Amino acid sequence: MKKINVFDTTLRDGEQTPGISLTLNEKLRIANKLDEIGVNVIEAGSPITSNGEKEAIKAIVKEGYNAEIASFARIVKEDVDAAIDCNVDSVHLVVPTSDLHIKEKLRKTRDEVFNQAMNMVEYSVDHGLKVELSAEDGSRSDISFLRKIFNESIVIGANRICVCDTVGILTPEKTYDFYSKLSDLIVPLSVHCHNDFGLAVANTISAIRSGATQFHCTVNGIGERAGNASLEETVVSLNALYNDYTTDIQINQLYDTSRLVARLTGVYLQPNKAIVGENAFAHESGIHADGVIKNSATYEPIMPEILGRKRKFIVGKHIGVKGLKQRLDDLNIKYNMNQVNEIFNKIKYLGDLGKLVSDVDLQAIADEVLEFEQEKKISLKELSIVSGNKVIPTASVKLKINEEDILIADVGVGPVDAAIGAVKKGISDFADVELVEYHVDAITGGTDALIDVVLKLKLDEEIISARSTQTDIINASVEAYLSGANRLLENRENR
Amino acid sequence: MKKINVFDTTLRDGEQTPGISLTLNEKLRIANKLDEIGVNVIEAGSPITSNGEKEAIKAIVKEGYNAEIASFARIVKEDVDAAIDCNVDSVHLVVPTSDLHIKEKLRKTRDEVFNQAMNMVEYSVDHGLKVELSAEDGSRSDISFLRKIFNESIVIGANRICVCDTVGILTPEKTYDFYSKLSDLIVPLSVHCHNDFGLAVANTISAIRSGATQFHCTVNGIGERAGNASLEETVVSLNALYNDYTTDIQINQLYDTSRLVARLTGVYLQPNKAIVGENAFAHESGIHADGVIKNSATYEPIMPEILGRKRKFIVGKHIGVKGLKQRLDDLNIKYNMNQVNEIFNKIKYLGDLGKLVSDVDLQAIADEVLEFEQEKKISLKELSIVSGNKVIPTASVKLKINEEDILIADVGVGPVDAAIGAVKKGISDFADVELVEYHVDAITGGTDALIDVVLKLKLDEEIISARSTQTDIINASVEAYLSGANRLLENRENR
Repeated sequence: MKKINVFDTTLRDGEQTPGISLTLNEKLRIANKLDEIGVNVIEAGSPITSNGEKEAIKAIVKEGYNAEIASFARIVKEDVDAAIDCNVDSVHLVVPTSDLHIKEKLRKTRDEVFNQAMNMVEYSVDHGLKVELSAEDGSRSDISFLRKIFNESIVIGANRICVCDTVGILTPEKTYDFYSKLSDLIVPLSVHCHNDFGLAVANTISAIRSGATQFHCTVNGIGERAGNASLEETVVSLNALYNDYTTDIQINQLYDTSRLVARLTGVYLQPNKAIVGENAFAHESGIHADGVIKNSATYEPIMPEILGRKRKFIVGKHIGVKGLKQRLDDLNIKYNMNQVNEIFNKIKYLGDLGKLVSDVDLQAIADEVLEFEQEKKISLKELSIVSGNKVIPTASVKLKINEEDILIADVGVGPVDAAIGAVKKGISDFADVELVEYHVDAITGGTDALIDVVLKLKLDEEIISARSTQTDIINASVEAYLSGANRLLENRENR
Repeated sequence: MKKINVFDTTLRDGEQTPGISLTLNEKLRIANKLDEIGVNVIEAGSPITSNGEKEAIKAIVKEGYNAEIASFARIVKEDVDAAIDCNVDSVHLVVPTSDLHIKEKLRKTRDEVFNQAMNMVEYSVDHGLKVELSAEDGSRSDISFLRKIFNESIVIGANRICVCDTVGILTPEKTYDFYSKLSDLIVPLSVHCHNDFGLAVANTISAIRSGATQFHCTVNGIGERAGNASLEETVVSLNALYNDYTTDIQINQLYDTSRLVARLTGVYLQPNKAIVGENAFAHESGIHADGVIKNSATYEPIMPEILGRKRKFIVGKHIGVKGLKQRLDDLNIKYNMNQVNEIFNKIKYLGDLGKLVSDVDLQAIADEVLEFEQEKKISLKELSIVSGNKVIPTASVKLKINEEDILIADVGVGPVDAAIGAVKKGISDFADVELVEYHVDAITGGTDALIDVVLKLKLDEEIISARSTQTDIINASVEAYLSGANRLLENRENR
């Protein structure tokens, strides 16, 4: 097994994603996680970007991680000085090598760039920095010029070399050919791929097959434009599809890592993202759910548990009877076959109307079909909201608690806050249900989109989640709160 | 140039994405677009899924597209009968071929499956259907069994054969080897890849290189789990990175197509999605923006216009002075160098605090620095909302438009919908500002959390983003809408 090093640039190339801006504390939290999961090199940032960036890099260095901490630098003294000032282990020194970049961007000659790069390698080495020399736009560069730069830099003391496919124009075949021409150099060869055509992971693996022993990547594949090779896709592909390579990454923490980075950067993933997307282990269609229940290998390439995840069965119009039964079992709903068929037909009907069937809806459909009248302690009789730009958001509710009507009002910083406040007040004599967390999934589409509200509620020592999906955020919030409160009260009674 | 056929399964495998459910009209709109951009085969659905699905397929057939319309069928008579009933051109007949699927899922023997498949090929051919016979889990199947099935099916009359990498376990190298072993068969060979490891596009291209002449794909790569090979990534890769292949797809409509499918399915893309993601042609960092302004090829593999898109420069802490000037020019803001430097420093400062600087913020910073008092066309004088569980969400607004007060009310499916509806109605005599997209970032914390509303608005042909952050989702939505509408009106005046 050949050991492949992981050079993570989530905090540098990833943070250059248009729109991302992390605070010092957020950068530290991500660096912590990267070190914890076994990343070998953490590129912490580009210190000349701003003072805050520099402080963040210094703070990361002070943590004393196992990982090597690298700082990005152009081949200018100011950049290397900033890296030295941050006390990093290594500098990721980037030299543009294509004639396009040399002539059009830098407006210099090859010789000028060559000399400037060698000076900066020497300067870095003299100041005790490890050097990874990266050829920017390397994949569109003359191979003999690349070899000249790399060979000379190695003589001066560069520790690693890297070719960047800066605009993502390589294919797996071209990558293999290109990196093969450099794999005889005596220092480790690194690969840095961009995903402009959706080929970054395949190209990265191709470079490894041709001799590269380190790859650059970002969590969730964030980065400039279409992003970089994704850490999780590359690592899991090497692990599950190839027999010859190993990394230090703890695969069972990849899902957590992905979610942390998504949350802190605000770059949420599409559900069909490989490995870490919400749907990567979700099954809706009858054929697939049936197969997975019989043997998960039929429709899953690896077990979700390997990634620290769980399988999900989704209720929708493609669901089959077996998947539906599994889902009802998961929800602890008892049924006979006639009832399952009736529920099944209702779901298909709703699906044809373009409606999703969430767990809450499924519970409601099941309740209806099973003629099960849940004995609710608290029910909502009326809710009224008044709000506006010159109005203090005000809510009034009429609740029925143990056959008694309670009428109460409250104000808040917004209409949801007022409504939840009123409900909480209304039941406070009866139970002190604390709202531990209020979460609304990102709303996308139109103002008529379904809004998914998830709450965490606490009574005594028990914490549960409750959820409601509606087009009205206020009603959804109140419904979720009451359904959770009822469940907590029922549980308290059963204790 | 070898012609490669595009078999799109957005409406079948794509619609099986957990959570997606399209109405008949939505399916028709997507089918229309697929036909318009040059897709060769449209897999319209699986008619046994539900009655609505069957009606949708029939409706698509009636449109009389150029594209061949295919229907999915298992190797059971009921499925083929449903396809016949829909009057489709062809049936996509799927036969599980791996021992895992045959034994564990179907609980049959190879011979039973073979016979059942041949019966259904014959039955389909006899009923005038073209047949594409697909090997499900083909990539984990015994190649000699595959050849036996395919050879016999061709004798009976199958028109095309397809190998499915059902769980996405192929690599580009394995794909090349595998499909090479089937490329001598005398009917067209098709490839169907899943993206579980992020390799679907690379594998699809690898199969084409080894002899496949048709590939299955979905718009935006939606589909079961991590989805299918993405139409746009595969087509654009073949077009831009290879010299030997051509398709009938009109590349300049791919961005529109992607957005249509995202909107109708509700599966929005992460910004770093290749080809069609919001950031695929966006530049924030100083180095990149500077390079692109000098020569776009430095940091862009293809011109965004080829895809019917435009380049974007984003303002953030990584912006350089050149990128900032470009952005100010785009926003029609006049400045001198001192002012640019002052704006620049404010952006860096905000970036270090973890704040994004949107166009709206940039406009505000610039206004402040340039001491420019924006003359607003439309201002909000009053907004009132009434809502609740037994109340139709109702909003009334008083707007001042060109010195005139306008008072108007509207209802909606929720309070935000009502409020935006009222504002839109109120300004409709003056300008028809269309709400293209409504987005709220995930809300986490308490009910008093800050809510970040981002809208996309359209007037004439211009689309802009507007944003507001407040604790009250209704006020934030209205404020974002009005600030965007004002900007659009100002731009229209300056045209």
